[in-house]
Amino acid sequence: MLCFENDYSEGAHPAILKKLAETNLEKLPGYGSDSYCESARGKIRQACGCPEAEVFFLVGGTQTNAVVIGSLLKRYQGVIAAATGHVSTHEAGAIEYTGHKVLELPQQEGKLEAQTLENYLEAFYGDGNHEHMVFPGMVYLSHPTEYGTLYSRRELEEISAVCRRFEIPLYLDGARLGYGLACPKSDLGLEDIARYTDVFYIGGTKVGALCGEALVFPRRAPEHFLTLVKQQGALLAKGRLLGIQFDALFTDGLYQRIAENAIKTAQELREILGRKGYRLLGNSPTNQIFVILDNGKKEELEKKVRFSFWEKYDEGRTVVRFATSWATEMSEVRELEALL
Amino acid sequence: MLCFENDYSEGAHPAILKKLAETNLEKLPGYGSDSYCESARGKIRQACGCPEAEVFFLVGGTQTNAVVIGSLLKRYQGVIAAATGHVSTHEAGAIEYTGHKVLELPQQEGKLEAQTLENYLEAFYGDGNHEHMVFPGMVYLSHPTEYGTLYSRRELEEISAVCRRFEIPLYLDGARLGYGLACPKSDLGLEDIARYTDVFYIGGTKVGALCGEALVFPRRAPEHFLTLVKQQGALLAKGRLLGIQFDALFTDGLYQRIAENAIKTAQELREILGRKGYRLLGNSPTNQIFVILDNGKKEELEKKVRFSFWEKYDEGRTVVRFATSWATEMSEVRELEALL
Amino acid sequence: MLCFENDYSEGAHPAILKKLAETNLEKLPGYGSDSYCESARGKIRQACGCPEAEVFFLVGGTQTNAVVIGSLLKRYQGVIAAATGHVSTHEAGAIEYTGHKVLELPQQEGKLEAQTLENYLEAFYGDGNHEHMVFPGMVYLSHPTEYGTLYSRRELEEISAVCRRFEIPLYLDGARLGYGLACPKSDLGLEDIARYTDVFYIGGTKVGALCGEALVFPRRAPEHFLTLVKQQGALLAKGRLLGIQFDALFTDGLYQRIAENAIKTAQELREILGRKGYRLLGNSPTNQIFVILDNGKKEELEKKVRFSFWEKYDEGRTVVRFATSWATEMSEVRELEALL
Amino acid sequence: MLCFENDYSEGAHPAILKKLAETNLEKLPGYGSDSYCESARGKIRQACGCPEAEVFFLVGGTQTNAVVIGSLLKRYQGVIAAATGHVSTHEAGAIEYTGHKVLELPQQEGKLEAQTLENYLEAFYGDGNHEHMVFPGMVYLSHPTEYGTLYSRRELEEISAVCRRFEIPLYLDGARLGYGLACPKSDLGLEDIARYTDVFYIGGTKVGALCGEALVFPRRAPEHFLTLVKQQGALLAKGRLLGIQFDALFTDGLYQRIAENAIKTAQELREILGRKGYRLLGNSPTNQIFVILDNGKKEELEKKVRFSFWEKYDEGRTVVRFATSWATEMSEVRELEALL
Repeated sequence: MLCFENDYSEGAHPAILKKLAETNLEKLPGYGSDSYCESARGKIRQACGCPEAEVFFLVGGTQTNAVVIGSLLKRYQGVIAAATGHVSTHEAGAIEYTGHKVLELPQQEGKLEAQTLENYLEAFYGDGNHEHMVFPGMVYLSHPTEYGTLYSRRELEEISAVCRRFEIPLYLDGARLGYGLACPKSDLGLEDIARYTDVFYIGGTKVGALCGEALVFPRRAPEHFLTLVKQQGALLAKGRLLGIQFDALFTDGLYQRIAENAIKTAQELREILGRKGYRLLGNSPTNQIFVILDNGKKEELEKKVRFSFWEKYDEGRTVVRFATSWATEMSEVRELEALL
Repeated sequence: MLCFENDYSEGAHPAILKKLAETNLEKLPGYGSDSYCESARGKIRQACGCPEAEVFFLVGGTQTNAVVIGSLLKRYQGVIAAATGHVSTHEAGAIEYTGHKVLELPQQEGKLEAQTLENYLEAFYGDGNHEHMVFPGMVYLSHPTEYGTLYSRRELEEISAVCRRFEIPLYLDGARLGYGLACPKSDLGLEDIARYTDVFYIGGTKVGALCGEALVFPRRAPEHFLTLVKQQGALLAKGRLLGIQFDALFTDGLYQRIAENAIKTAQELREILGRKGYRLLGNSPTNQIFVILDNGKKEELEKKVRFSFWEKYDEGRTVVRFATSWATEMSEVRELEALL
Repeated sequence: MLCFENDYSEGAHPAILKKLAETNLEKLPGYGSDSYCESARGKIRQACGCPEAEVFFLVGGTQTNAVVIGSLLKRYQGVIAAATGHVSTHEAGAIEYTGHKVLELPQQEGKLEAQTLENYLEAFYGDGNHEHMVFPGMVYLSHPTEYGTLYSRRELEEISAVCRRFEIPLYLDGARLGYGLACPKSDLGLEDIARYTDVFYIGGTKVGALCGEALVFPRRAPEHFLTLVKQQGALLAKGRLLGIQFDALFTDGLYQRIAENAIKTAQELREILGRKGYRLLGNSPTNQIFVILDNGKKEELEKKVRFSFWEKYDEGRTVVRFATSWATEMSEVRELEALL
Repeated sequence: MLCFENDYSEGAHPAILKKLAETNLEKLPGYGSDSYCESARGKIRQACGCPEAEVFFLVGGTQTNAVVIGSLLKRYQGVIAAATGHVSTHEAGAIEYTGHKVLELPQQEGKLEAQTLENYLEAFYGDGNHEHMVFPGMVYLSHPTEYGTLYSRRELEEISAVCRRFEIPLYLDGARLGYGLACPKSDLGLEDIARYTDVFYIGGTKVGALCGEALVFPRRAPEHFLTLVKQQGALLAKGRLLGIQFDALFTDGLYQRIAENAIKTAQELREILGRKGYRLLGNSPTNQIFVILDNGKKEELEKKVRFSFWEKYDEGRTVVRFATSWATEMSEVRELEALL
């Protein structure tokens, strides 16, 4: 059966497995203090143009979001996010479990706008009752967003400026960051992200790793961050598992290169869908494609292809998602074409 | 200076102070186990037509909301509320501090509609990803709402039916319940509320008490509720302070009677405002009146009257709130009339 | 029936009730911003010799402990307390509910010793694994302790010096502080406490108020403390209720004076017990007396006197507690004498 | 350099790496719903003699403890553990972060005794103030313990009987369970553990896996457990990573077999230490050996061997730990022998 269900359907890029095997019997210290973690940190610092960055490796995305948000916010603060943000909707309340509110703002195709943010912050401080309310304490963006869309450099710069004016950190969730970086339509590179944000993560799980996210504080991590990570159950004893993978991903541009495959196959599929007259939802330029299908067509396709239900569009139509990944082969796109 | 700022500007109804003084040197056991608490419980059970109800006395509204919601919800659940609900906006994140999300729904003049609720619940369970989301675990209403509006018996019955269909408890925040009960336009009595909800509180702080809210579980309280109350720092050593007050409030219909004064004075003020051509925001029939004032008029009035800023209406106008209470005298309304 | 059950059996000192009645119909702003709160703050600052102190009024003791500890600790820290401390044992997990561990240390008659504390802190930082452990983030003392004992000025100074060496705040729970201050054997005054601690509270509930504790930060309160208080459900709408009471208690030395009554009656009872050959547990010089009773005697007394079970001593004997208060009359002590 | 530092110094058993590589490009559904997870569950159910068991895969030990304890306890409850238990000391407050107290009891070489437990529970319910205290809500054991010791079948049965009498679940932390099962001195098998406990986990991280722990509810998992796991950031998108590893470990007795190697090499080292006159601390029969070294000897050894500091013994001596693992070779033991 064909599979365009998501970007974490396969195991790891073969170069990662190879490196895990080669290093397997080396006796290394635990908790991220080994030489592979150190090497990966160095390569990531270089890729971000941040020689001072502090880099930590965590296991998964929701975990990373909960650790970052639960560690950076003061108790009286919440995190601002688009109403469609992953932290707002699909983390089973992981943020609230840390005791903090997600302050949901309106969005455009999954993106938060600088003006919306600024208006909200001005209104908050202009409200005479704001001491009885949750203080906005950081801003959460995802890039690419849950709708596959991307911030431009200009947009990120503007959001960053608002955050700095109000002295709140800006956090970028890069679960699919590779697919954003590899997108030819994007003008936003790792160095820009490191400049405009206060913390972000480079997603591994969805971009070729078995598991793992590289969390980057371009300037300074919170005090005793390792202890905070441990307290949230996110500290891996065999930290090597993460270090080795990111060391491989950041050697010879592997991370960027494998992400490009997802973009190319997605672009091909997008063109096929266009030629065949399918209507897309939104303008995702990355590896997620949202298509409005007649329910009959959807049921027919489901017999031969795995893809994701996204939402009901109307009585007779459904929005579904096709996702490509680092591992998608062009021949699979061709097979799908034949079924569409 | 005249004061229509809120309904907790004065101390307590004199009958309460009198009873506190009369009983002052009696040596009573602590934590709500004294005879006055017991007596007040009996009177409240009777007023609610619930001989089996479990009644607890807590100190304030936000505290009561946090205790109820933090005690009833399971860990994977959140509480549904109108986006304008007190728990959504003005409790400084007290609900999230208990680890739970407030699931905010659209509202009409502060009210949640049964249909909105039902659509939300159906969509939730219809979403294939709902195991990655916060489960709706109870419904929060305020009555009167933050906009002074009231649910009809029919509306509450419909909401209750949806809750029971989905097996989630219905909680009614009655911080100003007295003013709802005393409103001639309302057909919703204590017995109805006890029938249609699973837990509610009868507000004392805003209806004549020094402090205190009577929390009523018409059928059954959560297991070890006293310990839960203690854990949230809400258990008063001198429980008598609350029991004596509610015993006085539920003797000879005092609670209802003093609330009527607020309704009468508010109604008079509403008529005055109408005659003078002021435009009201919404249709509050209770003790809160929302008026759209020209900014010039607002500034002029502020020199002689205390009232609340509610929100900016447009560049030249502001929404303000006038509140009456059990203690407002008709002569004060007349004095205000002269200034309007 | 005679009652020596605890020090919160009665209502309030009559001077407090009088002042509540006199001010009852004044229209005052809420949340502790009224003139009585301000006046009480001024008098407390003066009594503490701290013109810069920030003073807040909360409702009860467990609540105050949870708010202070939950607000001052960083997320990776816990609070050090004697294993018999109120926060360790009798707050239903209120501290852990804020997400923090109580680090329990051995005690002597309820007191923590500076040396024990210093050893613990040195061992913690000497442990190579301490980043995987809960960091000690503040020290909690009660004064008088749960066993009625008192720290000397010297002892408090030594503990304070250890805290400052390790840069962690020192917090003193003064639920019964008045009874410590009024004890002729104590050399520790309010000014000393303000000098040696970073935060403490002056208990009202057990020393003559209807409810209420005055929380004093001699130097500086945490940022946005009002919001933190609100978030934990501890902010009283009618803050006047607390301000008026503390204003009365700190007028003309009332707080000290009424506490002396408890000490005198306790001292008399202690002498009676001594003369009659009863054996005391520990050396409480304050208003709590712990007596080892034969079970037969205990049962006989229980028919005519209310007192507290403390703990089983051995098969045939029980430790019980007699407590006096600001309201205990010498005639009651005489009546008890006749029964002993 | 020789390494006896811990049992997570290497990567994974080669059979695991092989299986990861073989299955790498299969497209599998996420979150533990794939066929390898299902296969592993079946094999684990069989090994435990529990056809009805519910099995979940989590990433690490502290995480698993926090998820289990945070999910099973009611809000008014804490978890009972030996004062030396991992949850008591070395999880950076992960349990308290879930809002629950660890109720620490005295231990013998890391083990909790049934009598100690029973006395504690009886005293708790016999205390008239227990509604103001943290209710004991479950019992946590580790097996092997942090001191390498093991419960006998009889001991576990007795503890289980106390738990059932008081109706609280019994949880066994099996981070090193394989080394307990493989120990010839142990009479406690997986089927016994499944019978006497309510939940336990089979440790993978320390027994041959890259990461991962298999959590077993022999009878029934908590409602919506997957959502609870997600909320604590512990749900792996590529659940296959864990399923494939445990499928390999529970094929042809691999888990047991590789654990035996650790026991044999530890036993050899223990005999060498004995012959050479070293004094051991305690009686660990498993893969951890605690040795009291003169500080001079310790410093000399550290130049050529990595091992763990455990604790200061006295001024001149230190307790250190040597750990063997599934990967330790007998030749390494010989090399160490030459240095001792």
